[in-house]
Amino acid sequence: MLKVNEYFDGQVKSLGFETSGERASVGVMAAGEYTFGTAAPERMTVVKGALTVKLPGHIEWETYYAGDDFEVPGDSSFDVKVSEPTAYLCDYL
Amino acid sequence: MLKVNEYFDGQVKSLGFETSGERASVGVMAAGEYTFGTAAPERMTVVKGALTVKLPGHIEWETYYAGDDFEVPGDSSFDVKVSEPTAYLCDYL
Repeated sequence: MLKVNEYFDGQVKSLGFETSGERASVGVMAAGEYTFGTAAPERMTVVKGALTVKLPGHIEWETYYAGDDFEVPGDSSFDVKVSEPTAYLCDYL
Repeated sequence: MLKVNEYFDGQVKSLGFETSGERASVGVMAAGEYTFGTAAPERMTVVKGALTVKLPGHIEWETYYAGDDFEVPGDSSFDVKVSEPTAYLCDYL
């Protein structure tokens, strides 16, 4: 029921769950650079640490800290740079 | 480096990490009742969902929602009731 997901050779791990009918996951990214694809639209919230992100259609990178969030359209992808292990919440919208 | 921990027959799972020299974990609790023991003091923050908690030395239960936090002394234990899967951040103090 609590599903463990691993991406990028285990550099990113997440725990999937569903609460109040909403699908979500919490995860941790190790330091590195990643490109994530989305199926559903999602909202990412930084829980601890920081994510530097280039959203689809954007030219500039922006850094998000604990408590900050950003939304990503479905069927798209976004780039992330992580300088220290960072925890996040992903809400599927 | 990102360590997956399982407790209570997999009803609680967490991902351990260290950022800026601080040890922490994010996890998810399935619905249920649990008693957690602490070694180090810790601060628990609800990330999504709700935790109903009885802290050590307390008689009453209190419910914490997303964004709320509570601290637990080291070498103690606390009781948690969870009615829906709930994500949390645990900072080791």
